[in-house]
This record gives sequence, C-alpha cells and structure tokens, in this order.
Amino acid sequence: MRIALIGYGNVGKAFLKLLCKKEEYLKAEGIDIKVNYVVSSKGGVYNPDGINIKELDDFIKTEKDITKYHKGGGSDVSFSTVLKNKDVNTVIETTTTNKETGEPGMTHITLSLESGFNVVVSNKGPIMLAYKKLYGLAKKNNVQLGIGCTTGGALPSINGGIIELAGAEIMSIEGVLNGTTNYILNEMEKGETTYEEALKNAQSLGIAEADPTMDVEGWDTATKLLILTNVLMNKENTLNDIEVEGITSITPKMINEALKQGKKYKLIGKTINKDGEVNMSVRLELLGSEHPLYSVDGKNKSIRYVSNTLGDLIISGGASGLEAAAASVLRDLINIYRGYKYVR
Amino acid sequence: MRIALIGYGNVGKAFLKLLCKKEEYLKAEGIDIKVNYVVSSKGGVYNPDGINIKELDDFIKTEKDITKYHKGGGSDVSFSTVLKNKDVNTVIETTTTNKETGEPGMTHITLSLESGFNVVVSNKGPIMLAYKKLYGLAKKNNVQLGIGCTTGGALPSINGGIIELAGAEIMSIEGVLNGTTNYILNEMEKGETTYEEALKNAQSLGIAEADPTMDVEGWDTATKLLILTNVLMNKENTLNDIEVEGITSITPKMINEALKQGKKYKLIGKTINKDGEVNMSVRLELLGSEHPLYSVDGKNKSIRYVSNTLGDLIISGGASGLEAAAASVLRDLINIYRGYKYVR
Repeated sequence: MRIALIGYGNVGKAFLKLLCKKEEYLKAEGIDIKVNYVVSSKGGVYNPDGINIKELDDFIKTEKDITKYHKGGGSDVSFSTVLKNKDVNTVIETTTTNKETGEPGMTHITLSLESGFNVVVSNKGPIMLAYKKLYGLAKKNNVQLGIGCTTGGALPSINGGIIELAGAEIMSIEGVLNGTTNYILNEMEKGETTYEEALKNAQSLGIAEADPTMDVEGWDTATKLLILTNVLMNKENTLNDIEVEGITSITPKMINEALKQGKKYKLIGKTINKDGEVNMSVRLELLGSEHPLYSVDGKNKSIRYVSNTLGDLIISGGASGLEAAAASVLRDLINIYRGYKYVR
Repeated sequence: MRIALIGYGNVGKAFLKLLCKKEEYLKAEGIDIKVNYVVSSKGGVYNPDGINIKELDDFIKTEKDITKYHKGGGSDVSFSTVLKNKDVNTVIETTTTNKETGEPGMTHITLSLESGFNVVVSNKGPIMLAYKKLYGLAKKNNVQLGIGCTTGGALPSINGGIIELAGAEIMSIEGVLNGTTNYILNEMEKGETTYEEALKNAQSLGIAEADPTMDVEGWDTATKLLILTNVLMNKENTLNDIEVEGITSITPKMINEALKQGKKYKLIGKTINKDGEVNMSVRLELLGSEHPLYSVDGKNKSIRYVSNTLGDLIISGGASGLEAAAASVLRDLINIYRGYKYVR
C-alpha cells in the first residue's frame, strides 16, 4: 500500500509512531505499507520511494516543523500534491473534526475518493454529516472507505455491526460510547465526590479535556450513535434527530440512591428501530446488574446490538488513547489490504 | 453464489429454513444465493437452475426422504456429482463431527478446496484436526474457508480475533465457550440443586444432550479453544496439548462458598501466549465480579482477548440453537460474497 497521511496532529503522529513500532510485525505478516506523504496544514514531506518514518520521528524530536525535513520536506507539499501526483492508493484523513461543515476533511475525502484512492478516516465530522454521499462516491469509484476509528476507536463497534451481524437485521443499538463520562460516573460511585470534583480529577489525569462540553453534554456519544445508526440502518439522520442529555445534572445523592438499589447510572446512546422508524436518544439511564452494560466501568466502552437471527451481540473494551486510535486506523488499513470490502 | 449443501442434518435443514425466511432480506441486500445441491448420506437433490427451497421444505413435511423429491431428487445425487459437474462456487459442509478422523467432512472439504470451491463449514472435526493444511489448500486454490460456526456459532469469536484485532498481537484468549455447562453452573447458583439435578433439568429442556460427556467433561470447550488458538496464533496443536477438566466434580457446597465470597465458578478455556510458547487449559475457575466473564450467565457465551495495541476485547452473546448456527453459516457466506478474505 502506498499511503498519504493527511493531518499531522495527535492521531497522525501516533499513527506514524505505531508504524515504527509494528515494523517487524507487519513484515512478518507480509503487509507492505509505504508512507509517501505526510501533510500538515503548513506543508509536509513527500518521498516517492517511501518516507523513512523512523528518521522522520527522530527529526521532529528536535525540530517541530516537518517542512524542514531534509528528505522531501517542503512548504509546497500539500493535499494538492497528492492529487496531482496520483502515486498513492490510500489516503488516511486525520484532520480536526468540524461538526458544522466537516472541513477540511470533507474536501480531502471527497477528492480522494473521486481520484480512486481508498480512504481511512479518524475524523468524525465528514462521516456524521455525509456518510451516505461519501459511501456512494467510494462505491462509484470502486474504492474502500474505512471509518472504524470514528465510533469508539479500538472498540470494534461499526465492524461488529457490519461483519459479525451480516445477514441478520439489527433491531436496536445501545452503548456506553464515551469513556470520559463513564469514568466520571464511576468515580462518583467510588467516593462521595460531586460531579464537579470528579470532572476536575478527570481533567487533571488527562481523561477529560480542558473544555469537556462535547463529552459531558452527550455530544460525543450522540455523534458516534448517529454514525452507527446511519451506517448500520441505512439512514440519513442528523444530530437534530437525537434527544441529547448529558451527565452534568448528576448528584452524589442520585448516585447513592441508585447504588442502594443495586443500580448504576450510565450515559446510554440508544437507537430503537421499529419497522424502519428510528428513535435515537442519549441520556442517563439507571441500569440494574442484569443489564449487560451495567458492568462497563471506568474508561471502558461497550456496545450492544439486538438482532433477529444472530441474537444479542455485546462488544466491550477497546483501549483508549492515541495509540489505540492509531491502531484502529491501522486495523481498517490492514483489512482493506486483505481485501475486505467496507464499501460493497 | 451457487451452492452445494453437503449434509442434511439439523444444521443443514436449519440453513435451508433460514434461507426461506431471509429471502426478502437477501434480495433487498442484492445478495443472490442459489442452492443447486442438497446432499444427504443417502442421495440428494440437484437442480442446475437452483432448487426451490420453499417447495422442498414443504415436500419434506410429509416425506422424509429427499431423494424422492420430484424436481431433481435421486439416490444417485452425491458429493461426487458436485465434483463432476463443477457448477457451484461454494460448498457448505454440515456433516456430523468426527474428532478422530474428521470424516466424511475432511474429504468433502479437501476435495472442494482442490476443485476451486469456497467452503463454509459447521463441522468442527476437520478444522480442529487440520486447519493449517486446509487453509494452505484454500490459499493455493485461491478460495475462501469460512469457519465462524465452529467456535461458538453466532458468537463472532474467530472473526473478532482475525478482523477486529487486525494489526495487534493477541497475548491471551479466555472464554466461556460452552453454553450447556454455563447453564448448569448457573442453575446450581440459583437454587440449591446438585450437579446431577441441574444436568437432568438441562437435559429435559433440550439444553444438554442425552449423552452430555462432550460438554460436561470440557471437550466441547477444548475443541473450540484449540481451533481459536491454532487459527489466531498460527499453531498446530492437538487436543492432547490441552489440560482438560470438566464440571462434573462441582458440589452445591463449593458453589455456596463461592457465592458467599461474591464469586462464581465458570468453565474457562484459556490460552496464554508467552513469547510464542502457548499454554492451554480448560478448567473450573473462580471469578470475582471484577472479571469480565463473571457476568456471563445462563446459556450465554463470551470470549476475551488481550492484545497489545488494541487493548482488551470482550465479545459476548450470540444466540444459541439451530437457527443461530445456520445464521452463522449464512454470515460467513455473505462475508465471502462481499469479498472478505478469510484466507489471505
């Protein structure tokens, strides 16, 4: 595979580090991945023979600006160079998510698919806004579109629905899809902390972001649920179609009363498909110990599908963090390499 | 897809029933499956234009012998006919498991792969005895070998390891892989029944077989663990390499003492991979509530993989019974149809 990495932020960097770490493994598996482009917003690196990513990794330890890299770095290396040269077969899109326009990812993905490149994307924006359109473009151009990283990273939620439930119809999707809020709720259960204290603690550990709005108000969960629903149930819904509540109103009193009854609050994203009519919600739900999502603790995530002929499927776990996000990009890449058709 | 169904026992019949039930769905998904052969040990049915399986299903309600079916039935229709005509692309092997020789499945699968047919198999025998050889044959002949049904049916255990952990290394496999024993242990936890009573109860409900040896002495779990280990860790082990204990020595006293400590006994199949050295066991283990397999109750099954870069993955659920087994055959079939490469 010849690859252009578009976006040189946290996920992009973690992906290159992972490729270094996995060099031996990939060789042993007979998987040949060449990175020909690394493109940031200010320029990039291009090497038609494949960038030596170990060397590049060493280089940026002392010099932040990759355009100064002596083997192919330049401020003139951009996504347009990739389009012009047409010497890769796969584009990895890891630019920052924009939930209103999806840009710049939307343009990158659209033009890549139109140019006949496979695309693996970690950027949720374009996928939540236009999956059906992008899927259609990929199909028309006979290329693949891997989106496994957009709905829980290492948790194989999308693939679980597509591959493992092939031939069965999915009646409902229900998940603990956000590790940060699950961690906060879990901390409140452990000690008698308030929501504010638990959030502050999560922020100091790097689990919650400085601006935690997306997580704690339920929008991260809603975004993932929207993508899962649109993809697995062939819909074109938007965030407006989801009733979204976060966890900000939770109190130690509520938590304690739940625990007394042997129950736990979880932020649940849920889609019920009733004869093709889809109902989506994100809200705090009180789960008893018989519920399969009851025991999903800490930063863990989990998803439950109810299907007709293949029964219930519950997938839990998935490491958190940048390496796991990078590993889930690599997973999609390898599956495309092996011939799996995400786009049929 | 043009299909020959070899084996007309419980799974074979359930598969044809499922195809009838899914007719509309498959049409809507654009999946074209024609069954050209149904072969039992006493003859079969052949129709080069595709057997009308609804009609065949009606026919066998009054007449057990399919060779008498007026549209293509005959005692001369056999697996050899399939080999001679070469007018299918996929063989579904559902004959009875033989754990010593793998026959007659071994011959069916070998000759099918050599003839350039994809094979989807529900029969564990040949897979536990010779997966590596059969995989090699499939690879050489550029066809696919789907084995998802052999390691827990609807529970996507094999695919979970192959697809969802692509690019990560699996350090351990641990699972509740047998629904019958899990049900019996669960019944003992609920009431103060002895092992013998719980087994009898399971037998009367059709959950345990008349001869429950394979389940209760751990061999069903061992077989599944062996297949998972050989496939996912590229080994050629045999059942002799596994330390196998069943659940027959469990007493109400043990169960009660465990419950008092907040623990449960589970029959766990476990493989630990330490620097390429593999250690396999099947035995009763005492799990605390923090263990992800603790809450797998009743007839449910679950598997946990520990990987390096993609973290833990726990897959639970999967319906039990014949329809679920048939649905897991259909799942592999559809994935092959969609281009997924089980054999790379």
